[in-house]
Amino acid sequence: MKNTFYVAVLFITGLLHAQIERVEPPFWWEDMKESKLQLLIYGKNISQYQPEMSGVNIVEVTRTENPNYLFVTIDTEGLTAGMYDFNLNKGKKKVATYSYELKQRLSESALRKGFDSSDVVYLLMPDRFANGNVENDNTKDTAEKANRDLHGGRHGGDLDGIIKHLDYLEELGVTAIWSTPLLEDNEPVYSYHGYAQSNYYKIDPRFGTNEDYKRLANELHNRNMKLIMDYVTNHWGSKHWLIRDLPSKDWIHYWANNETGFKRSNYRMTTQFDVNAATIDAIACMDGWFDTTMPDMNQKNPMVVNYMVQNAIWWIEFAGLDGLRVDTYSYNDKYGIAQWTKRIMEEYPNFNIVGEVWMHDQAQISYWQKDSKISAIEGYNSYLPSVMDFTLHDAILQAFDEDDQGWDKGMIRVYENFTNDFLYPDINNMLVFASNHDTQRLYTIFDGDVNKYKLAMTLIATIRGIPQIYYGDEIGMQGNKTLGDGDIRRDFPGGWPSDEQNAFVEAGRNENIKSYFDFTKKLLNWRKRSEVIHFGKTTHYVPQANVYVYFRYTDEKTVMIVINNNKEVQTFSLDRFSQRLGTATRGYEIFSDTTVDLTKLFSIPGKTPMIIEIENN
Amino acid sequence: MKNTFYVAVLFITGLLHAQIERVEPPFWWEDMKESKLQLLIYGKNISQYQPEMSGVNIVEVTRTENPNYLFVTIDTEGLTAGMYDFNLNKGKKKVATYSYELKQRLSESALRKGFDSSDVVYLLMPDRFANGNVENDNTKDTAEKANRDLHGGRHGGDLDGIIKHLDYLEELGVTAIWSTPLLEDNEPVYSYHGYAQSNYYKIDPRFGTNEDYKRLANELHNRNMKLIMDYVTNHWGSKHWLIRDLPSKDWIHYWANNETGFKRSNYRMTTQFDVNAATIDAIACMDGWFDTTMPDMNQKNPMVVNYMVQNAIWWIEFAGLDGLRVDTYSYNDKYGIAQWTKRIMEEYPNFNIVGEVWMHDQAQISYWQKDSKISAIEGYNSYLPSVMDFTLHDAILQAFDEDDQGWDKGMIRVYENFTNDFLYPDINNMLVFASNHDTQRLYTIFDGDVNKYKLAMTLIATIRGIPQIYYGDEIGMQGNKTLGDGDIRRDFPGGWPSDEQNAFVEAGRNENIKSYFDFTKKLLNWRKRSEVIHFGKTTHYVPQANVYVYFRYTDEKTVMIVINNNKEVQTFSLDRFSQRLGTATRGYEIFSDTTVDLTKLFSIPGKTPMIIEIENN
Repeated sequence: MKNTFYVAVLFITGLLHAQIERVEPPFWWEDMKESKLQLLIYGKNISQYQPEMSGVNIVEVTRTENPNYLFVTIDTEGLTAGMYDFNLNKGKKKVATYSYELKQRLSESALRKGFDSSDVVYLLMPDRFANGNVENDNTKDTAEKANRDLHGGRHGGDLDGIIKHLDYLEELGVTAIWSTPLLEDNEPVYSYHGYAQSNYYKIDPRFGTNEDYKRLANELHNRNMKLIMDYVTNHWGSKHWLIRDLPSKDWIHYWANNETGFKRSNYRMTTQFDVNAATIDAIACMDGWFDTTMPDMNQKNPMVVNYMVQNAIWWIEFAGLDGLRVDTYSYNDKYGIAQWTKRIMEEYPNFNIVGEVWMHDQAQISYWQKDSKISAIEGYNSYLPSVMDFTLHDAILQAFDEDDQGWDKGMIRVYENFTNDFLYPDINNMLVFASNHDTQRLYTIFDGDVNKYKLAMTLIATIRGIPQIYYGDEIGMQGNKTLGDGDIRRDFPGGWPSDEQNAFVEAGRNENIKSYFDFTKKLLNWRKRSEVIHFGKTTHYVPQANVYVYFRYTDEKTVMIVINNNKEVQTFSLDRFSQRLGTATRGYEIFSDTTVDLTKLFSIPGKTPMIIEIENN
Repeated sequence: MKNTFYVAVLFITGLLHAQIERVEPPFWWEDMKESKLQLLIYGKNISQYQPEMSGVNIVEVTRTENPNYLFVTIDTEGLTAGMYDFNLNKGKKKVATYSYELKQRLSESALRKGFDSSDVVYLLMPDRFANGNVENDNTKDTAEKANRDLHGGRHGGDLDGIIKHLDYLEELGVTAIWSTPLLEDNEPVYSYHGYAQSNYYKIDPRFGTNEDYKRLANELHNRNMKLIMDYVTNHWGSKHWLIRDLPSKDWIHYWANNETGFKRSNYRMTTQFDVNAATIDAIACMDGWFDTTMPDMNQKNPMVVNYMVQNAIWWIEFAGLDGLRVDTYSYNDKYGIAQWTKRIMEEYPNFNIVGEVWMHDQAQISYWQKDSKISAIEGYNSYLPSVMDFTLHDAILQAFDEDDQGWDKGMIRVYENFTNDFLYPDINNMLVFASNHDTQRLYTIFDGDVNKYKLAMTLIATIRGIPQIYYGDEIGMQGNKTLGDGDIRRDFPGGWPSDEQNAFVEAGRNENIKSYFDFTKKLLNWRKRSEVIHFGKTTHYVPQANVYVYFRYTDEKTVMIVINNNKEVQTFSLDRFSQRLGTATRGYEIFSDTTVDLTKLFSIPGKTPMIIEIENN
């Protein structure tokens, strides 16, 4: 049944005269909460015909300025799974037919639970992680060919590569994968990152097939792990078939200054809410293109939003997704993207979606989280459940390199990030991270010092929110963003058959890699079983001498985290922490596997993290 | 009538046996909205007696752990102006009597209009501005003697000095004075700043008398100018008579670690709202002392709050104040200070109070403004009408020294400050400033470059909010905070009879001083008559090439401000600004007094500000 629906799309009876080249979504499901479904029917001059669907109520037919499109909205209410004939008629004459499938829906589908703060998310770039199938490195339908010598080239990593290393990821202790985009990106160059997608219903064949993606989800679920899809609403790729034959010009923001319609965004996302902003600046941000190969989608057009809603739901339902990560969330038309988000969350109320809101101010990030009191000031609600803690990332970039014990340096930066937690409506639904595919590699930030890495990872893994780690950091992978994005997206050693070193297996890890990996594995596996970290409250203390102490606690359990960012050993009394320590006298430190006497002066070596499970009296 | 009430306080008939040493407030007014008045009666072992007041309803008598106090709450409802006998009885025997005055209230008092964005506030330190009366430089009742050789000493400036230079201030174009504290500060050293006040009902005699203060207000009002009192609720001076004989220990935060009760604040104001904050840190901030000579007042004690409410109202009513500036607002118990603020604003609904909230995050500053949606997240309301734009100050500290045209440098810093204006419930009631008595001198920030000063002043004077300038900046006064606070609080040249230079008069200004003063005078006098700046809306544009362009506008009038922070001349088309320029073809630039053709390429020299009044077609 591989790729049946792509074949079906092109099925035409010899007797008919019109050609239905595409139907999107290619199939659907019975029993969806939203019963309306808008089918996009594409074919040469197809808009002249009348659609008809046997046994199905056509609610609305929409024609756009391009005669190659028909948008047919049907109502699936009460329909059972099966095949439904869709016909195009000219007068009384049938000129084309298509058999449309409604699939049976899994009973647990609607209430699927999305990723949450019990998870640790592993962000990987599929082209750079592991090449599990060298046969698909190049395909005849895709333009760019594999070339590992190019930083910005396709390297051949794929879904098979991910699936083959799930044991590694499970061992590491992560519980969810966020892969950067896997859909077809048919740009002639620099397509490996996948953010200029050319077909929203098709996994890029160099990564594998749609079925491979579903297999990845299944394999993850078998391990009690989750799959998060990287979804791009803001822009599509310039090679998308629809972009090359737009239903109407207003599907994208077409700038008349340029024959491709390109004008670069000014990236000033503050214009989304700045009451003083000039309209021209706001338009430049939201309607400008993120890059030359990325036509900016017009979410003011409800048909565009609807296409993306259905597409996202299609992938959730088809592959069995556990969450979405939405690229460049805050560049979208904010009302359009809110509609998109709301409709998906209405279909899957326990699902999770995290948006990339790369801003440097907590009020501005909070603006984008569902039910934000900040955006409520102007009456806006994004309906986005989860946002990313970019200000924490900002703090981490500087904090662990600072030995200064001044007013606002070192661990004070980290402490201060959390003083604004009250601004967020759902603080545990924040993605917390020290690095991602767009930021400097930790190795470079920390000058290759594994001790600084340990401090940052301990923080990420024990503070409120959902930790996200970036592939390779757990083995001290090098890379420097100042050399270009390609350098922070190097191939994982051992992912390619020809690799000399294989860091996926213990035998392939040298002492330095082991120092990263073993620490991370211990930390994340401890976190996996520590509910107090997943859902506990936080009490933190003003750092003294560059030592940050905080507690995560529930009614049953208390954990004390001590991050000594000072180069020197620090010794202090624990009296100051009595609010959380109470009468406890002993604790258990998880990295050293030792018991700690809480009644004595406490001592911690320089540049060292400790996680101490407090033993109740 | 000079100082009548101080004499009256000490009046005792020879026949009586108890001594009423103090009554506070020393007098009051009829027809106040809040008719209850709590009299503090102080005298040796006075609490044993029964108070009685002829013709006045005593609502409540409160005794504290100190027998030297009686707090007697009376109801002034329906009482007319006049003298009321207050008696202390022992059994049926009268042991002391005091004649308490209720004064007539000015009919316009309650609805007085506070300072607002039509004003420009001039902040001065009275000890350092002008010595109008050399006779009061030292008095027998005050400890510290004048010594101009000491940076941290008393220099002799006074109220007479201010009053004598009101013509200068009026000429400069400011419309309100905020003087740092004028109440008695009887610390033995470092008392000149006045923030450790020892008597809340008495102007420091080295500055003059209460009547002199009232005279200053009257002289200002005669010039249509306003007076803002610097009020300190967070702490009193260690030499305050009440602090030295506390009614009860819980009037201050007494720390047992030290025999004076001193423990320094940790100054971590974020603990006021941080949901993760450790209680011990929050207490250290709010209950710690601002400095050794400043016992921290306990605003959790309603009697303390009530004392300060009545005291503030007393000064407003007595001197005829137009506003308060509240020191260290965010160090107070936030519920106590909200009560204080609310009660004053209820008494004077059109009044204005600006609080010092020295934080570096707009959400955090906004938290403290009345009806803030930020503080509403936790259900808090400060009732404080006005806050200070410290983040703008942060931006100014860096922006004008940066020629960088990068993503977040130079004028982008300033632009970004205003992108969060939506966080503030009342954006025009923000004090905007480039410097004050606690910050680096502009001269030093700008390396003595008058052009940078002009850029900053133009910004301050034309953006939304209430501009505040710091005495001496308008003549390019030098000073460097790294040498100590005294150095940014130098004596105004010409304020002392022996001064060789007198910058108060044109003849005393050299070319450099003239370049500062003449510019400032022109700018502020233009602002004084420009309602569009006072209350207009704002549209601003993303700075390009370090040039910031914004408009202030009303239905009737539009002003375009161009701040070229680039060293080079910048030439550009005005097409980008059509949203505000409309079809206008001409404007009038106020510094150069020239007409500008808006239809041509626009050109502005390096490091130059322009203010262009747009002429409607």
